[in-house]
Amino acid sequence: MDLPDHARERVVIREVGLRDGLQSIATILSTDRKREWIRAACEAGMREIEVGSFVPSRLLPQLADTAELVPFAKSLPGLTVSVLVPNLRGAERALGANADLMIVPLSASHAHSLANLRKTPDEVVAEVARIRAVRDAAGSKTLIEGGVGTAFGCTIQGEVARGEVLRLVQALLDAGADRISLADTVGYADPAAVRALFADAVKIAGQRFWSGHFHDTRGLALANVHAALDVGVRRFDASLGGIGGCPYAPGASGNVTTEDLAFMLASMGYDTGVDVERLLDLRAQVAGWLAGEELHGTLWRAGLPKTFHREAR
Amino acid sequence: MDLPDHARERVVIREVGLRDGLQSIATILSTDRKREWIRAACEAGMREIEVGSFVPSRLLPQLADTAELVPFAKSLPGLTVSVLVPNLRGAERALGANADLMIVPLSASHAHSLANLRKTPDEVVAEVARIRAVRDAAGSKTLIEGGVGTAFGCTIQGEVARGEVLRLVQALLDAGADRISLADTVGYADPAAVRALFADAVKIAGQRFWSGHFHDTRGLALANVHAALDVGVRRFDASLGGIGGCPYAPGASGNVTTEDLAFMLASMGYDTGVDVERLLDLRAQVAGWLAGEELHGTLWRAGLPKTFHREAR
Repeated sequence: MDLPDHARERVVIREVGLRDGLQSIATILSTDRKREWIRAACEAGMREIEVGSFVPSRLLPQLADTAELVPFAKSLPGLTVSVLVPNLRGAERALGANADLMIVPLSASHAHSLANLRKTPDEVVAEVARIRAVRDAAGSKTLIEGGVGTAFGCTIQGEVARGEVLRLVQALLDAGADRISLADTVGYADPAAVRALFADAVKIAGQRFWSGHFHDTRGLALANVHAALDVGVRRFDASLGGIGGCPYAPGASGNVTTEDLAFMLASMGYDTGVDVERLLDLRAQVAGWLAGEELHGTLWRAGLPKTFHREAR
Repeated sequence: MDLPDHARERVVIREVGLRDGLQSIATILSTDRKREWIRAACEAGMREIEVGSFVPSRLLPQLADTAELVPFAKSLPGLTVSVLVPNLRGAERALGANADLMIVPLSASHAHSLANLRKTPDEVVAEVARIRAVRDAAGSKTLIEGGVGTAFGCTIQGEVARGEVLRLVQALLDAGADRISLADTVGYADPAAVRALFADAVKIAGQRFWSGHFHDTRGLALANVHAALDVGVRRFDASLGGIGGCPYAPGASGNVTTEDLAFMLASMGYDTGVDVERLLDLRAQVAGWLAGEELHGTLWRAGLPKTFHREAR
């Protein structure tokens, strides 16, 4: 069918493969290749990229070059550059690098939070307040995103109460977070749970609700995206080749796959700005760089449908 | 959270791996192993199984034992036994075997229909009318299902108009089909297209709308199921280990994976009657029988979430 005359609704895909993906695999990509990846993603129409993480490089040597990648990515036209920061110290580096946005991860699961961040969720909220104060004192424009992980449960404590997730969303906003995201860190979500939780979170955060972050650990990531679309979410994290993963589920899929997500959204008539064919080319290139690592995704094998161009582009 | 007291809504998964799955792979399972598969699926709570196809065995030697499988499957308590029949001759064999339901495939794509069935879609409709007459004359209770394939386009002609699909749904009903199903034969569907087409088909067929059949060729099968659930579809075809596929997309996934679908539906709170853990055991067994063949699906690698039992069973 022909495209309607009116502009289609925008959905933004944020590429997180360079952070969430690369941190969970052994291969260390050179800074040059990461630059090539970022540039090609930008040329394919991606407009938001999480380029790395300001954590000590002895913990994540894969991401040690984040401070070099931020200015490079910011030099590309129209690109919003995100980084992950675990604490105030990381935030200070993000401010120094002039990142557009810094994501502070918080785990809604108390047990998971203690195991992974060595802080309670409320201690992370307090850290966000400190980051906000430092950011404001510096007169910086770097946005602060509170990323609420294990929002659908975790492998350590199991169940995470919806009320607790929503309490933390409100607490992060009160502490000064400019943006709120929800993450199904371990692939425990299902479309019904997504619809319910995201609807409530969007109600609380309004325009400050930012992104949905789904792992495909149990194959439901795209169905969960579809459920989140239904309650108005218009930004999703994704990882090229579906890299990333969960240490508790070896071999399981990582993040929702960027190219599959871009295909689904375009097919549905959303405007992602992304050229899926160029994304598939980039995927092939990155797959070559990551030879020996397990990639995921489905579209790359079957290719685009014969109906794709006329119907969706 | 605790289960609500009221009975949850029923969603039926029809296992088609023994037909759609086995017909597309080289390994020929022995009749004994197929019996074991059918028995174990039934013990895991599956209540509808497509056990084979009444096509000439020189065309599909993998399914040559269908006439033996029907009476076996019918001997199991509470199992609805389906077979595929390509024409009146196949239908007569299905009537002879006393199958509960026979699926007559029709391809909404004229080009695909000619290439695969050597008939136009309307010639298939006429065949359904003949099958109905013979069925009624025999006083048989075997139901006739018109399965409208390539409902979202095909690899030969590309686009298939929605109006043409709906016209064929109506024509099949007029010709005497008791049930109507829609199939995304080559993985061209997306959730928006599914919602639109299935809503219209359900409007036409009402209670006679039967099943959604989605291939996971491009990773969207579960998202498409989710979209169909939204418009009231409550029965889906699926294949254990995701076997089945598309000759035009080598290596691409086949049918939506039974165990992943059962997990998604149970997590969402639907009552499928299926024990997902037993299904995973059966998958492992079938995977052993099909060593060397490519299976699909995601849940089997990660296992069930810690939250699964309390939340969804």
